[in-house]
Amino acid sequence: MFSIPEWTWEFHGHRCPFMPIGYRMGTLMLKTLAAPKAQDHEYFIESELGSGHPQTCLMDGLQAVTGCTYGKLMMERMNYGKLAATLWTPGNGSVRIAIRPEFSDKLGKYEFFDYRKKGVEPSKIPEPVRLEVINVVLNATDEEMFTVKKLPNYEYKRMKGSFNKAKCEGCGEYVFERYVRMKDGKLFCIPCSGY
Amino acid sequence: MFSIPEWTWEFHGHRCPFMPIGYRMGTLMLKTLAAPKAQDHEYFIESELGSGHPQTCLMDGLQAVTGCTYGKLMMERMNYGKLAATLWTPGNGSVRIAIRPEFSDKLGKYEFFDYRKKGVEPSKIPEPVRLEVINVVLNATDEEMFTVKKLPNYEYKRMKGSFNKAKCEGCGEYVFERYVRMKDGKLFCIPCSGY
Repeated sequence: MFSIPEWTWEFHGHRCPFMPIGYRMGTLMLKTLAAPKAQDHEYFIESELGSGHPQTCLMDGLQAVTGCTYGKLMMERMNYGKLAATLWTPGNGSVRIAIRPEFSDKLGKYEFFDYRKKGVEPSKIPEPVRLEVINVVLNATDEEMFTVKKLPNYEYKRMKGSFNKAKCEGCGEYVFERYVRMKDGKLFCIPCSGY
Repeated sequence: MFSIPEWTWEFHGHRCPFMPIGYRMGTLMLKTLAAPKAQDHEYFIESELGSGHPQTCLMDGLQAVTGCTYGKLMMERMNYGKLAATLWTPGNGSVRIAIRPEFSDKLGKYEFFDYRKKGVEPSKIPEPVRLEVINVVLNATDEEMFTVKKLPNYEYKRMKGSFNKAKCEGCGEYVFERYVRMKDGKLFCIPCSGY
């Protein structure tokens, strides 16, 4: 049985099947590329998930295991509404991993999803119902869950960063230069500029 | 001295001053609104940070302490390039917290930032240099670091979610319905549609 660290549940906030799916997906990404967890800003994950649909929780598992956190600007959503993501590394190549439709179908039959479709939040679903489906995730093989495709020609280029900033003439708060706006000859932040 | 849980460093991947600033910012948000950490999808954080500038790491501290994770779709960047964020709760109101420019100026004088401006990644900066500035963050008062403004009229409306999905006729992968596209009378995912 696959095991995930207790702190990842604390980070995520509730026990559900998708955080561990993401944790497993990220583990397999790193293993496939023989790459360690990112400490700094080494990698990037292009997530194919979107908004307004379930199962996005898998991105929290991905953040936790790969070190590609949203705060470090190492994960963005492409808004494709698909259960897949691509990990880019500068030296070890790139890999796309997707959840197999057959595995989605299998999971969807568990009682957990009856509750979710009725709008019951994960933490309010009876624990045995949650553990049942989480155990399916932790006991599945990688082959059963995922399709894995190495992408030898995939390129990602990080935006060039800058430490320069200006104080907004409206609110007096700092704005990093990319987002400074000029109005009536003065420098403003976007909200104060009205643009 | 403020103390933050060890697992938040493990999540974040390196020790830097901004993750703990975000952790403190989120702690103060919850305290100001007398709200507990979110387990499910209760709240939302509108982050005023952007890309291509430093100090975005604070969003990881915010995720960790508030439970408003990116995976649960509870945090989005407004791309204002500002060191501020607003927490919305359905029952306890909303609050915007920003880092005081004076505190940014104070922090900016520490050696840590000399390394960062030379492009040295946080994990590669000598530990005493990092601990020095982290200790400044952990020893500062809330008043010294932050401006706090309750927003009684702030409203946030979560996108209505749907569990419906279709299998893409191109790749055979599932797509959630918001993102299904039609082409030549067939249903596709966005990449396969070519749109």
